[in-house]
Amino acid sequence: MTQAGRFITVEGLEGAGKTTCLRAIEQLLEAAGIERPLFTREPGGTPFGEALRSTLLDPRHRGLSAEAEALTVFAARAEHLAQVIHPALAAGCWVISDRFTDATYAYQGGGRGLGDDRIAVLEEWVQGDFAPDRTLLLDVDPAVGRSRVASRGDGEDRFEQEQDPFFRAARAAYARRAAADPERFRCIDANRTEEEVARQAREALADLVSGGAPDG
Amino acid sequence: MTQAGRFITVEGLEGAGKTTCLRAIEQLLEAAGIERPLFTREPGGTPFGEALRSTLLDPRHRGLSAEAEALTVFAARAEHLAQVIHPALAAGCWVISDRFTDATYAYQGGGRGLGDDRIAVLEEWVQGDFAPDRTLLLDVDPAVGRSRVASRGDGEDRFEQEQDPFFRAARAAYARRAAADPERFRCIDANRTEEEVARQAREALADLVSGGAPDG
Repeated sequence: MTQAGRFITVEGLEGAGKTTCLRAIEQLLEAAGIERPLFTREPGGTPFGEALRSTLLDPRHRGLSAEAEALTVFAARAEHLAQVIHPALAAGCWVISDRFTDATYAYQGGGRGLGDDRIAVLEEWVQGDFAPDRTLLLDVDPAVGRSRVASRGDGEDRFEQEQDPFFRAARAAYARRAAADPERFRCIDANRTEEEVARQAREALADLVSGGAPDG
Repeated sequence: MTQAGRFITVEGLEGAGKTTCLRAIEQLLEAAGIERPLFTREPGGTPFGEALRSTLLDPRHRGLSAEAEALTVFAARAEHLAQVIHPALAAGCWVISDRFTDATYAYQGGGRGLGDDRIAVLEEWVQGDFAPDRTLLLDVDPAVGRSRVASRGDGEDRFEQEQDPFFRAARAAYARRAAADPERFRCIDANRTEEEVARQAREALADLVSGGAPDG
């Protein structure tokens, strides 16, 4: 019994409903008989990456330079690829990551204003031409996302403390990424209900799942 | 009273005698009437950079990928440049850093085998053509350096736990850097006594110091 691993990423602003989407994907893969899917996240996914994540999210580092932020995110990603993502795909597992490089284009390229070209240099340095097989972009109005985050009632991290212009720029950068690569991206209207987001997520992966179940 | 800031870096393997060298530089600058010199270090030099340093040195992250290590070092460096080095130089201060980018060529480029070309991409991304005005390279036999570190009696960090081939490769990379840029580098024989290292350090900066004292 063999299966081909697929690399799926889920992208979106804070409060876009990524958790709902990831749960829908988990159920879909289970129903399709796809074994041992690996759910992971960025920044993070390894002990080293999670340590960098804690430093990145720490509100005490307010005012961190955009360059330092982007390099740290890619440092965590390099370790994630080396220790987790590439080995899992090589073993035939599906890997589903809560955010990946598109988030760096959105947050550091767009939100922080570094621009696509500078992010692309680091992407090439770390990944070569490696990219997800499918990316689900949960597009949400930043105001809707923020109200969902606020209703959770836990403290805000350094990104959640950002203001509307930051999130509007990040959303626009995400949208540009999706428009430039319609083959890889599936856009999900994340202003809608959880049930509707879950339905769109299943639909966005239906073709891959039907082709990715065990052969025998 | 004005003075032109200079950027001085001190490089070398563990146990090369950087502390002795930095103390000699401090005394030299004081004797020359150079005010408010800023002594700093890499990786580190900012709260964010020091947090990354702790993660990098943590022996629990044994096996960290060379790419993640290099990116993390440059992330700390980007913040160090933005928050500390560039502002201090702009204010006319001398900045003396215990390690800088040559260490990345030595440790990650040489020791970890990433090679000069890949480090050069990140150097350009972070620094453009910014470089130290003078670099003092403390060249030490790795065995001599290690015996000095061992005599300190504190625990070994993740780099100090490396073996001889790593340090020999790092030393060779340092030597190549110095040979390629004799204008910037001054090599100090760090196998000798502390007094002799201090004397060589003073000599290596004499021309800059005589030109860098207050004008009036």
